[in-house]
Amino acid sequence: MTNTNNKPLRDVVRPTTIVESGRLSARLGVNLTIATETFQHTGSFKLRAAYNLASQVPQRKIITASSGNFGQAMAYACKLLGKWCTIVMPDNSAQVKVAAVREYGGNVDLVNTLAKSRAQRVNEIAADHPDAYVSSAYDDPLVIRGNASLGEELCEMARTFDYIIAPIGGGGLTAGIVTAVRESGKSVKVVAAEPLLANDAARSLREGRIVYNETEPQTIADGARTVSVGNHNWAVLRDGLFSIVEVPEEKIEEGVRLLFSLANLKSEPTGALGVGAVLTQPEVFQGRSVCCVVSGGNVDAEVYREILGN
Amino acid sequence: MTNTNNKPLRDVVRPTTIVESGRLSARLGVNLTIATETFQHTGSFKLRAAYNLASQVPQRKIITASSGNFGQAMAYACKLLGKWCTIVMPDNSAQVKVAAVREYGGNVDLVNTLAKSRAQRVNEIAADHPDAYVSSAYDDPLVIRGNASLGEELCEMARTFDYIIAPIGGGGLTAGIVTAVRESGKSVKVVAAEPLLANDAARSLREGRIVYNETEPQTIADGARTVSVGNHNWAVLRDGLFSIVEVPEEKIEEGVRLLFSLANLKSEPTGALGVGAVLTQPEVFQGRSVCCVVSGGNVDAEVYREILGN
Repeated sequence: MTNTNNKPLRDVVRPTTIVESGRLSARLGVNLTIATETFQHTGSFKLRAAYNLASQVPQRKIITASSGNFGQAMAYACKLLGKWCTIVMPDNSAQVKVAAVREYGGNVDLVNTLAKSRAQRVNEIAADHPDAYVSSAYDDPLVIRGNASLGEELCEMARTFDYIIAPIGGGGLTAGIVTAVRESGKSVKVVAAEPLLANDAARSLREGRIVYNETEPQTIADGARTVSVGNHNWAVLRDGLFSIVEVPEEKIEEGVRLLFSLANLKSEPTGALGVGAVLTQPEVFQGRSVCCVVSGGNVDAEVYREILGN
Repeated sequence: MTNTNNKPLRDVVRPTTIVESGRLSARLGVNLTIATETFQHTGSFKLRAAYNLASQVPQRKIITASSGNFGQAMAYACKLLGKWCTIVMPDNSAQVKVAAVREYGGNVDLVNTLAKSRAQRVNEIAADHPDAYVSSAYDDPLVIRGNASLGEELCEMARTFDYIIAPIGGGGLTAGIVTAVRESGKSVKVVAAEPLLANDAARSLREGRIVYNETEPQTIADGARTVSVGNHNWAVLRDGLFSIVEVPEEKIEEGVRLLFSLANLKSEPTGALGVGAVLTQPEVFQGRSVCCVVSGGNVDAEVYREILGN
């Protein structure tokens, strides 16, 4: 069956929220624009990917693995579309993310990722539901296309950025932004910000092939705890990214604190990777017009309190 | 000398940021729209008042008393306009607010309000600067007019609210919103949200005359630590407000936590008074279309951590 009543993506997602802070610009030494997806439905950019995918595939059931934000987004998208979904999540995911998936009506399947990979668990569930679409959280042309909508919004703005910096985990967000920038014809450099602890993408770029982490890296940026970038994303990123900045954990946390104190913005650690990248390589961005994409805001109060107190 | 190069108010202030949260709406049982001024220049709505005042008066020097946000806003406005200002602040003001006034180039004069009133200290400084304009932080027709710009934005929106709820301290914000709603011809009920600990405005409305607190009430909502509403504001509010909700301290804190967890919004305690009002009188707002104005986001990390941990 086809879905004829689907609304177009940009009628469903909220436009990204632009936040400017003269004090944070001054602190970072750049002309900073923050594009925050923390006020997107479900609190992260992931709705762009999830809605685009769920509205395009003909299946009524969707199974996916997600460290959390894609799960919330998929649950919400499926609710809008009247579809069924099960989300496989690591058992150490942020509690708020697990609760939210359930609140949006999604089924949650918790897996101990030290004992079994998320992919293995997804395959087990898929065997029980042969009529379901098994969706990657980050590696699908429909995901890239959905995320491109954010890049389109940034390219439609009157101002032109020297750099757009966005977090990288599986690479779906940056692949979407690169795609949109290319289509716009603008000469904006797209930079990926990756936790140093989970630097498989940076190593991939250096080695010219996809490099895999042996286990999911335990960075505080839980949205970037992926084993590798996806194949579809890699095809876009390998020559589409200007660079990848490897951000130490303490710079991620400093990014969260600076967004709190100087921009009044609540960010999850993954969302602060862009600001963390500027803190890590200040000489690269000094004096330039920089757009930092804050990818999401869903963080447990306890984790947030700990970061603010450090 | 007159200021001929002043930009119009609405070219200087940022439009208020609209945030919607299905989860917070569901939790509160209302159709909620958040109009947040946390991303306004200087982090609160006060720039609307400060810029309007500083750009309209002919004096080049301005002296004012402020628990903080008006001080930051006045310092920023004076910087834009090339004017000089001194801000008298209680010595227990949020540290971030004191630091920010100084960062924007304003002079800070700290006063122990248990020993001397802010007004007394302002008069002392004014005696040394007879050429200065002594500005109220909340009671001046130019303040009301500046704050009315926020009400205008809310009335220009396509949706029509049953209620607009905004914090009340000196009454400048609510007087501005009432003024704009009246001018728009819309039949929106404007509700003021006041800390129960600092309920002089509610008592004033009950008694039909301005009632004064004996000292500045030590509510956690530091933006509402005023001794009374202002005379100009009272003239608007006495028959312009639909009601005043007296919000207990614990509901203010709960409002901060709900904005954090369900709307990804960092609010200062005063900014959460609107949500606190809905929590305090749920039966009044149940099922209605409610706009909560979040007046500002400037809160010390330590205070915020404490609230999140409660």
